[in-house]
Amino acid sequence: MHVLIIGAAGMVGRKLTERLVRDGHLGGAAVERLTLVDVIEPARPEGFSGSVTTKALDIASPAAAPEMVSARPEVIFHLAAIVSGEAELDFDKGYAINLDGTRQLLDAIRAAHEAEGYTPRLVFTSSIAVFGAPFPDKIDDAFFSTPRTSYGAQKAIGELLVSDYSRKGILDGISIRLPTICIRPGKPNKAASGFFSNILREPLVGQEAVLPVSEDVRHWHASPRAAVGFLLHAATMELSVLEQRRALSMPGLSATVGEQIEALRRVAGERAVRLIRREPDPAIDAIVAGWPRDFAPKRALELGFTADASFDEIIRIHIEDELAGALPA
Amino acid sequence: MHVLIIGAAGMVGRKLTERLVRDGHLGGAAVERLTLVDVIEPARPEGFSGSVTTKALDIASPAAAPEMVSARPEVIFHLAAIVSGEAELDFDKGYAINLDGTRQLLDAIRAAHEAEGYTPRLVFTSSIAVFGAPFPDKIDDAFFSTPRTSYGAQKAIGELLVSDYSRKGILDGISIRLPTICIRPGKPNKAASGFFSNILREPLVGQEAVLPVSEDVRHWHASPRAAVGFLLHAATMELSVLEQRRALSMPGLSATVGEQIEALRRVAGERAVRLIRREPDPAIDAIVAGWPRDFAPKRALELGFTADASFDEIIRIHIEDELAGALPA
Repeated sequence: MHVLIIGAAGMVGRKLTERLVRDGHLGGAAVERLTLVDVIEPARPEGFSGSVTTKALDIASPAAAPEMVSARPEVIFHLAAIVSGEAELDFDKGYAINLDGTRQLLDAIRAAHEAEGYTPRLVFTSSIAVFGAPFPDKIDDAFFSTPRTSYGAQKAIGELLVSDYSRKGILDGISIRLPTICIRPGKPNKAASGFFSNILREPLVGQEAVLPVSEDVRHWHASPRAAVGFLLHAATMELSVLEQRRALSMPGLSATVGEQIEALRRVAGERAVRLIRREPDPAIDAIVAGWPRDFAPKRALELGFTADASFDEIIRIHIEDELAGALPA
Repeated sequence: MHVLIIGAAGMVGRKLTERLVRDGHLGGAAVERLTLVDVIEPARPEGFSGSVTTKALDIASPAAAPEMVSARPEVIFHLAAIVSGEAELDFDKGYAINLDGTRQLLDAIRAAHEAEGYTPRLVFTSSIAVFGAPFPDKIDDAFFSTPRTSYGAQKAIGELLVSDYSRKGILDGISIRLPTICIRPGKPNKAASGFFSNILREPLVGQEAVLPVSEDVRHWHASPRAAVGFLLHAATMELSVLEQRRALSMPGLSATVGEQIEALRRVAGERAVRLIRREPDPAIDAIVAGWPRDFAPKRALELGFTADASFDEIIRIHIEDELAGALPA
């Protein structure tokens, strides 16, 4: 099987690549070939016995999509996007990459479909940013998309395109709306959502972290490992059961910041919790107030997608996957 | 005030033009200039004292949108579309006109906005085709868009774009989802929805009409006059109350085919009803089963949009507007 990952240099793309290399198969079929694409050339994975192609391609360029599908990958993971903050600041770039890039991919698949019946599985990563406040307590599967960012609008449009091209039989697509990834590995960043990860990741290694909102802020989370699990399940499950409703909110864990901190206390002790410094920031508070807090993702659960069981588990996954299984002494 | 109507040669566009000419004003401001655009040159309205420009333009052409907004109309009605059946048969044409045409219009407005602060009111006609079965008994304002046609997908994408460009302050837009127009004037056509109008319009003038579905089929209707009323209200109401939720299902009248026929009996008598010939068509039955039957358009009603009061009224409107006020002897 030939698997293409678009956006392979990003955090989720790297984790997905690692997992495919480790498993060596996808849904029972051996992964013989990996094509890894991103705007910067992705790293070659170590320890993969099959063939690997890595490419730097700008998906906004009309030449990129035909090149990406030229070797007819059976499974395509489309993870590439300009993130929310950047799409808000650079309107043209957001539409060029998040909308035109996606559409050009679909049209390149369509050209190959019409020429020779090529009909790949496409997994498109959408986002809970397709939803806009005000929300019900739990967002159910039939709630409407009224995004409050261009990124959210572009993801909602991508969902509609993936569904329509799938309905036409051009490809076999699914859009999965990922929760906020927590604990995001790496360095603290200035994204408005960064603190959800920072307040756990930094104290786990003895570093201070800033908490800009109150402890009763509630949000919707999934570990990187759960997110990769969603992608693999989406790539291998039978999709005809979705009928025309091919965009799914993924399961996740709804937790308050206070509950995150209690989990940190249980896993890493009071010393870690003391490294969280309260520094209220009304601007971040206002942004976060517009974000989803909780979901009732009944369809995804019925279809076998599984979320993390607890925030303790989310923290333990980070320790296993990023800290070699143990906290520093 | 300068008003631009894109899609002015279509049925709703012609009715809207007639109404603006008759009223002479829009929301209290005199209509001094009308620009009427369609893929075929629209007819010049009679009896208009202001200036009129009529143009044949293909909105799929990149040159069309800049030309349309070059004279900076304060109000733009965007009614142009490839209809459902044709967009289903010609995938490229549907996307070129319904998606690219709309986006090019928004981008032409954006260029003028950035150059000189131009920020027109834009009324975009969307459709109940953004919804796909299965439905609740009444579709409420927060129900999701899972279209089952490319036309519906293109309209749903248009809604997202109009909302996002409005959120950015580039224009002041609203998307209104029109019910099925009944009684559609003109000749019987082969659209799957044609019979809803045919079974009233033809018997009113002594002609036979074919009913391909059972009398318990329920659907969602508005008269041409009500549709024009929605457009005028959308063009003149304060839109800031919509916040980020700028797509609205319009009110309408939910009626079964049996209720339509009873109204025909009350208005035009048994002789008219006897001209309806039952000719069951399972193909049309299957298509219609996927269409919305009823709505709870709470927001639109609260915002002052008003529907027809009864099917008797819908039939009387047709007699007034299309048959000079009286049935043929």
